[in-house]
Amino acid sequence: MIIGFVGLGAMGSVMVGNLLDAGHPVRVWNRSPGPVRELTERGATAVADLAEIFTAEIVISMLANDAAVSENLLDDQLLAAAPEGAVHVNMATVSAELADRADRQHRTHGLHYVAAPVLGRVEVARAGNLTILAAGDSAAIAKAQPLFDVLGRRTWAVSDRPAHANLVKILGNYLVACSIEALAEATTVAEAAELDPTLLVDILTEGLFTGPVYQGYGAMIAARTYEPVAFRLALGRKDVELALDTARSHQVPLAFGSVLRDVFTEAVAHGQSDRDWAAVTETTRRHAGLDQR
Amino acid sequence: MIIGFVGLGAMGSVMVGNLLDAGHPVRVWNRSPGPVRELTERGATAVADLAEIFTAEIVISMLANDAAVSENLLDDQLLAAAPEGAVHVNMATVSAELADRADRQHRTHGLHYVAAPVLGRVEVARAGNLTILAAGDSAAIAKAQPLFDVLGRRTWAVSDRPAHANLVKILGNYLVACSIEALAEATTVAEAAELDPTLLVDILTEGLFTGPVYQGYGAMIAARTYEPVAFRLALGRKDVELALDTARSHQVPLAFGSVLRDVFTEAVAHGQSDRDWAAVTETTRRHAGLDQR
Amino acid sequence: MIIGFVGLGAMGSVMVGNLLDAGHPVRVWNRSPGPVRELTERGATAVADLAEIFTAEIVISMLANDAAVSENLLDDQLLAAAPEGAVHVNMATVSAELADRADRQHRTHGLHYVAAPVLGRVEVARAGNLTILAAGDSAAIAKAQPLFDVLGRRTWAVSDRPAHANLVKILGNYLVACSIEALAEATTVAEAAELDPTLLVDILTEGLFTGPVYQGYGAMIAARTYEPVAFRLALGRKDVELALDTARSHQVPLAFGSVLRDVFTEAVAHGQSDRDWAAVTETTRRHAGLDQR
Amino acid sequence: MIIGFVGLGAMGSVMVGNLLDAGHPVRVWNRSPGPVRELTERGATAVADLAEIFTAEIVISMLANDAAVSENLLDDQLLAAAPEGAVHVNMATVSAELADRADRQHRTHGLHYVAAPVLGRVEVARAGNLTILAAGDSAAIAKAQPLFDVLGRRTWAVSDRPAHANLVKILGNYLVACSIEALAEATTVAEAAELDPTLLVDILTEGLFTGPVYQGYGAMIAARTYEPVAFRLALGRKDVELALDTARSHQVPLAFGSVLRDVFTEAVAHGQSDRDWAAVTETTRRHAGLDQR
Repeated sequence: MIIGFVGLGAMGSVMVGNLLDAGHPVRVWNRSPGPVRELTERGATAVADLAEIFTAEIVISMLANDAAVSENLLDDQLLAAAPEGAVHVNMATVSAELADRADRQHRTHGLHYVAAPVLGRVEVARAGNLTILAAGDSAAIAKAQPLFDVLGRRTWAVSDRPAHANLVKILGNYLVACSIEALAEATTVAEAAELDPTLLVDILTEGLFTGPVYQGYGAMIAARTYEPVAFRLALGRKDVELALDTARSHQVPLAFGSVLRDVFTEAVAHGQSDRDWAAVTETTRRHAGLDQR
Repeated sequence: MIIGFVGLGAMGSVMVGNLLDAGHPVRVWNRSPGPVRELTERGATAVADLAEIFTAEIVISMLANDAAVSENLLDDQLLAAAPEGAVHVNMATVSAELADRADRQHRTHGLHYVAAPVLGRVEVARAGNLTILAAGDSAAIAKAQPLFDVLGRRTWAVSDRPAHANLVKILGNYLVACSIEALAEATTVAEAAELDPTLLVDILTEGLFTGPVYQGYGAMIAARTYEPVAFRLALGRKDVELALDTARSHQVPLAFGSVLRDVFTEAVAHGQSDRDWAAVTETTRRHAGLDQR
Repeated sequence: MIIGFVGLGAMGSVMVGNLLDAGHPVRVWNRSPGPVRELTERGATAVADLAEIFTAEIVISMLANDAAVSENLLDDQLLAAAPEGAVHVNMATVSAELADRADRQHRTHGLHYVAAPVLGRVEVARAGNLTILAAGDSAAIAKAQPLFDVLGRRTWAVSDRPAHANLVKILGNYLVACSIEALAEATTVAEAAELDPTLLVDILTEGLFTGPVYQGYGAMIAARTYEPVAFRLALGRKDVELALDTARSHQVPLAFGSVLRDVFTEAVAHGQSDRDWAAVTETTRRHAGLDQR
Repeated sequence: MIIGFVGLGAMGSVMVGNLLDAGHPVRVWNRSPGPVRELTERGATAVADLAEIFTAEIVISMLANDAAVSENLLDDQLLAAAPEGAVHVNMATVSAELADRADRQHRTHGLHYVAAPVLGRVEVARAGNLTILAAGDSAAIAKAQPLFDVLGRRTWAVSDRPAHANLVKILGNYLVACSIEALAEATTVAEAAELDPTLLVDILTEGLFTGPVYQGYGAMIAARTYEPVAFRLALGRKDVELALDTARSHQVPLAFGSVLRDVFTEAVAHGQSDRDWAAVTETTRRHAGLDQR
């Protein structure tokens, strides 16, 4: 089965590499040529036209955001030319609203749209250890499953409605943002009270809050080292807004979300956009005037 | 070494039981006679007068709150009669302010005050698996260590300042409260969007948010079953206020804490004081009008 | 000087009536025919084509929102056909962003764009007592001044940048929303403490908080009568979002604004969209569980 | 009728002066002697013992806070010696809880406790223009009315329950604090958008938000001049806490109040305690990073 792959950013390139290593033939398309060349050397076939990608039975896309998906892939002419019953698996983090729209549009053309956003960053992807959140037609998911097995350690069949997979991803990121803020507040109190923040985090993540989020961000926050950047603060802010917008579309007020919106806006106003999003900690510290004590 | 033990609530009784099972002689005192009788049958010695407890070289107290400690134990006459160099280990969750005061008062009388609040509830205590947060004079902690080894699976030497142990405990509970609210918000969005909240929690606690807090409360919140009551909501509210008060005494604003204060007040206004504190979830659901949809 | 007038909603119709009464010739255009007929009977000239409106030296528009302005008036063909130096006065409440865009587009075609949103509702407009917030080229404002003198009691020359007038209007509405929430919280405490909310409002608006906002909304909120509807809650919510979006575009976090967003979302979730925005009071009362006491 | 007067701070001294000027005989008591001397020169009689004050038929007190009232006046021996039916009018800003307690204690001794806090600061008091909020037994209020007529321009008979007068005062201050924060947020957006904050305030306080609060604080906030200090920020913070505590005792969450608590805590952390409370504006400006742009 030939795979069409659209979007060769950091994640996309790693995923294509793994598919090639597993013996799958992959046709790739990317806006800029750099990543294409590298992958053709590893066996991928470069195609110049997106339409050619969509002649494949299964297409995986990994574009940056809603706008990129909307402009490049939600094109009636492009979709009309795809073979009946073809499957398009969008593994990027996009909004639930976009997923609903994409799903409708693909159905119109007799195609299957599967949303399959992932948990895990580049290093996890490289190791083939992503957690894949798949939603859409179950037969379509089954068709993609052998590829998911290459890319990830586990696939969750979330629901038959693609938007639900995006919702899980968005709410997952929302919980991470909440954890960061909670850790920032607790460590700021510790610092103000002359209790070692690293010791605090060590104790609480040893038994109560195990897992990579609290342990990873806890260590960064306690030590106030926001390098290397795992996730840019500006992107974190966008994801918080995504959660708020989705909640709002369902008339759900998010009290913590409103706090996060303000905290991230302040961090951006203070020039922290390009640091890791754990740097919102500095906002809480500034509120407490810690650097002036 | 004879141990004096004050306060035979659910936790205190279980702890005395474990000390007796380990072969330690224990003198016990409690305001009400019920729990005393049960423990004397198991080998404890009941004493009628608190002063007699304080003739022991090591006293452990496990009273309900600041007021109970202050009224019963921070008594100059009582402390003056204790043998020079005796150690008082307060394992209850009290405020950092009370710890500071108790520490000063014990020093005045040539005694050692060790704060040693615990992580873990009754079942964990029964299994001798508590996590013990000890702070105070290191020689005094060393003296208590054989008892800590009976009661818990691990002792953290937090600091030489007793209040710091209480601060860790308070901030730990604060992080738990934040987790509950974050989970409540995420599952409410899921419910409003017709995504199964239990599936959401299963996915997110499998890899990202492992550990007992997210897994335990996550399951309760997703299923909206707030029984059995692990921790009463009214007590949770008190702990949130404790965190806010401590933070305020250090001039640290807690944005999430302010939200929690409002959410817990609303839960109490709606008659939820005696349910498990995970029931604050119902506040977020009410905000979203879910029961009226 | 012939006036072109676009948008005959409740406000627009009243304004055209006043211009006619003052002896000005007015050409009118509206999407639906009803209001047109009424005004032609009073002397206005109906035109079928928007382009004909834009042959006038001065055009006033009063459309519902950003989208209506954008679709109908920010059309290059339409603007290109207007006479060099013509003035377009947009008196509707639109975003500062739209004003910036409209200003640039009008300049391109050699036209003047004046933003002139108003303070005051239909009854105030009928009496010719609006407060007009004008911003743009000063010569263009001077040209419109005779018409402003008919429509309002006072014109403020805000700035030479049109968006600034919209910003004043948006921030004015923001302060009103804040007042409503503050009054809602104070009267809810009064009710819970068995103090007559109307007496509270009477006392505080007699000396400290005079003026129509506190006196008008204070009386409604204390009595919990949200009829007649002066301003729909759904519109109020939109205006709060407008303030938040503008603030966010300038990297300003609004702590009260975040609370308002949540409170208005909850009110909508509870079916209050079509009541007066003072009805957000019921949200605060619900939080306090007042109807269940 | 001889008047006993307790508490000669800035407000108390001015009030006694006015009573003397109106021809009333006044016995005064104060902890420190300075203000006593000044008033005896104007005709007051100094008494050394509080008990002597309480032999008067009517006693007015104007002490600093709950603690001062509780320590000095809520003394059973003192109250037992007062003549049956005597009236004690407490005109200070104290908590509703203290008023309830004082009321009960006075009744026990056959005395009347009237709460009569005032709106207006020293200059207003000097001109005899205070607004007096009186609550308690109506006959007792009637007895004090001639004195209220000297001290104020208007007396409100709030309720027969003294605590209600204190509640009105506390909620009045709460509304002022909310106004300050709302103005701070609006002017910060204006500044960030390069719109003159003073113009914004001038426009909005001309028609919509008349009255001393918006006009007075609006001008201070727009100009960022927090001198002279009308009300110290540390006291403003205390009053916000008073409102929150009262609300909490009635299980009413105050969303704006929680924001205020955080904003005032941050202002104190940044060393603003002794500036006028309008200086919380600097907190909002700091959040927006305005000084770093």
